[in-house]
Amino acid sequence: MRMVDLIEKKRDGQVLTDEEIQFIISGYTKGDIPDYQMSAFLMTVFYKDMTDEEITTLTLAMANSGEMIDLSSIKGIKVDKHSTGGVGDTTTLILAPLVASVGASVAKMSGRGLGYTGGTLDKLEAIPGFHVEIPDAEFIRLVNESHVAVIGQSGDLAPADKKLYALRDVTATVNSIPLIASSIMSKKIAAGADAIVLDVTTGEGAFMKNIDEARRLAETMVRIGHLANRQTMAVISDMSQPLGEAIGNSLEVVEAIETLQGKGPEDLLEMCYILGSQMVVLAKKATTLDDAREMLKEALESGKALEKFREMIRNQGGDDTIIDAPESLLTAKYQIELPAQTSGVVQKLVANEIGIAAMLLGAGRATKEDEVDHAVGIKLHKKVGMAVSSGESLLTIYSNSDSIDHVKELLYKNIEIGSSGTEPELIHDIITA
Amino acid sequence: MRMVDLIEKKRDGQVLTDEEIQFIISGYTKGDIPDYQMSAFLMTVFYKDMTDEEITTLTLAMANSGEMIDLSSIKGIKVDKHSTGGVGDTTTLILAPLVASVGASVAKMSGRGLGYTGGTLDKLEAIPGFHVEIPDAEFIRLVNESHVAVIGQSGDLAPADKKLYALRDVTATVNSIPLIASSIMSKKIAAGADAIVLDVTTGEGAFMKNIDEARRLAETMVRIGHLANRQTMAVISDMSQPLGEAIGNSLEVVEAIETLQGKGPEDLLEMCYILGSQMVVLAKKATTLDDAREMLKEALESGKALEKFREMIRNQGGDDTIIDAPESLLTAKYQIELPAQTSGVVQKLVANEIGIAAMLLGAGRATKEDEVDHAVGIKLHKKVGMAVSSGESLLTIYSNSDSIDHVKELLYKNIEIGSSGTEPELIHDIITA
Repeated sequence: MRMVDLIEKKRDGQVLTDEEIQFIISGYTKGDIPDYQMSAFLMTVFYKDMTDEEITTLTLAMANSGEMIDLSSIKGIKVDKHSTGGVGDTTTLILAPLVASVGASVAKMSGRGLGYTGGTLDKLEAIPGFHVEIPDAEFIRLVNESHVAVIGQSGDLAPADKKLYALRDVTATVNSIPLIASSIMSKKIAAGADAIVLDVTTGEGAFMKNIDEARRLAETMVRIGHLANRQTMAVISDMSQPLGEAIGNSLEVVEAIETLQGKGPEDLLEMCYILGSQMVVLAKKATTLDDAREMLKEALESGKALEKFREMIRNQGGDDTIIDAPESLLTAKYQIELPAQTSGVVQKLVANEIGIAAMLLGAGRATKEDEVDHAVGIKLHKKVGMAVSSGESLLTIYSNSDSIDHVKELLYKNIEIGSSGTEPELIHDIITA
Repeated sequence: MRMVDLIEKKRDGQVLTDEEIQFIISGYTKGDIPDYQMSAFLMTVFYKDMTDEEITTLTLAMANSGEMIDLSSIKGIKVDKHSTGGVGDTTTLILAPLVASVGASVAKMSGRGLGYTGGTLDKLEAIPGFHVEIPDAEFIRLVNESHVAVIGQSGDLAPADKKLYALRDVTATVNSIPLIASSIMSKKIAAGADAIVLDVTTGEGAFMKNIDEARRLAETMVRIGHLANRQTMAVISDMSQPLGEAIGNSLEVVEAIETLQGKGPEDLLEMCYILGSQMVVLAKKATTLDDAREMLKEALESGKALEKFREMIRNQGGDDTIIDAPESLLTAKYQIELPAQTSGVVQKLVANEIGIAAMLLGAGRATKEDEVDHAVGIKLHKKVGMAVSSGESLLTIYSNSDSIDHVKELLYKNIEIGSSGTEPELIHDIITA
């Protein structure tokens, strides 16, 4: 088998066999197939797409390219959750303890933020002492004993994906549904969970700018999951404006605690109930989504979920006193209000641009090598559909610098105030099979 | 400017600016742009094509990537000729002296054969002592004094093309009209001739399998030539069966001499008159193609063209006694006839497969590193449209081995005899602007 012939075959729109796809992924992982052939191949996939069978084979070959985590020693069904990225998306911090508090096992591997997108690991590390680099055996022990652990991806998980992602990033082949789907699902499958809930975000703050694309991605991933014997469901959620009110690592930890205390933003809480119900059903702790939601509501209102978050923090070496004094995390030197320049109704809060504003403050990374500043970020006071008077604060900027005119300017440019505006639908669709 | 953004721009079907194309070619030639970005870019060009302006800018950037040969010290108009490759295509060996013998200056750089396609340099080297590696100054002197020289391409001519071609070869991006056209024309432009006659072959023995593709390639190259200020014409010729009767290096030298003696195959001679007339008109040695043909006919019939070939061989260090005893070149150990297995009319002589048979005998190269055996090859006795009786020889195989059953089998499989067959049109079209 020669790579050039396989490039030509896909170039001309033919379907590759399992053996051919496995040859490509194993050859590329081992370094037998050079980057310049792989990038040409990726571009053919961008144009010619792949069948479900091809994507599934590709995903499994990528999952099998390195360590496959074996969670079979953990009792019961292990659920994982993945979001395709967003701005102010604090759901994992809330969902992990919330779902675990009703007895479902949450074995979650998370990632770091890049560009306008935040990352769960960065948020967790805003908690003093919190460890995300945990060996597999310890990860398994924690999930077994506590039903929950959220850790960083092990270095040898799906190395083919790591290598491919770096190549796609510099060859304009990121934005391809078979390549996105196989990248996400290969890591989820290698991470070992039995059931996967996917949050496919859509809108300005998401990778998928329109709902049709998001739906195709969600459907593709759900099918791959089923073909790979993992119970999989997906939600297509709105990311045209940031989720919740907090953007920035410490601010989002505080928001997670407040939400678990019943004092969080409504849209964020609702999102957690929707995703959490799916996780509980997939974990077979409830038979219907309604029953699952009732259980979660009860756990939240009784304080059980908050206690589970305290336990999770303690388990992973974090300072659990922040549960009782979350405001101690808000150490940014400056808190600067952004007053509305006119009166009216908020019509637009362009999510990716607000995310970039937070990144510019230091909350996110422009490149992988950048360090994040946990203390900084943005707290929104007005969201789309809300009335505002001229001079009233739209948001508070938490900053360690007072020369932030460029941030303010970017924010003003991306907050539109007009005569009317409606809150967007939170959930566009749910894909179950 | 970032290469990844330019890949994305072309990927989405946008037109690149001159500056962008120059950035790509100069960056790639210098090694600033890696192969893996270039191959992704080449694949976008394969799918999204290029405008005439883009192809012209690309061609000139490639031509300018290395040495630009300055032929201005040669008096008059210098003509070059290029064929897109074929089987048994002996035209350059005949045309160069024929056109020079009527006073037009032929400054020609040729290439080597690969796969089923023969190369002029290999054919010339079948003449004992003949040099093709000649310094530029000597090349210019020869053309000035003798009106003709045929040499190998200098190492630093269009290095971008050399690098790109090697990459295209292993990334399934060879077969793209903008990439083929810019590859050919960049070398022709860098080689310095004022006027270029292109022979775009079509059919089984050619790179372009159908006439529409060949026409698009020819039109593209003629337009590039004009935009680059070179008088350019193209002929679309048939290569469904081999041209002439000889395939193999020494055999083709003999055929060239016989043709210059007025004893060559009719199709080959006609092809030489057609291409030669164009060259003579472009060199302004005649005003009409008919006048030019008359001049060439006279030069051939008077023996002037043959004497010019003798002079060219002597000039380049070759043994010119072969002009009087060409059969001395036919030193293959075995001459084996291939008898027809039925009676009828030849319907098909599949050019590329006959070319591969000659390659298997040693006349050509399977890979660039292979050495060629000048003595071996095939001499056809029957061409498409000719009647043949069972047992009559279809062709003679010149071989240095007597275990050639696989070659015979391949030949039989690719010579079809039936109840009727017609000689194909030699010329499908002529493109002048």
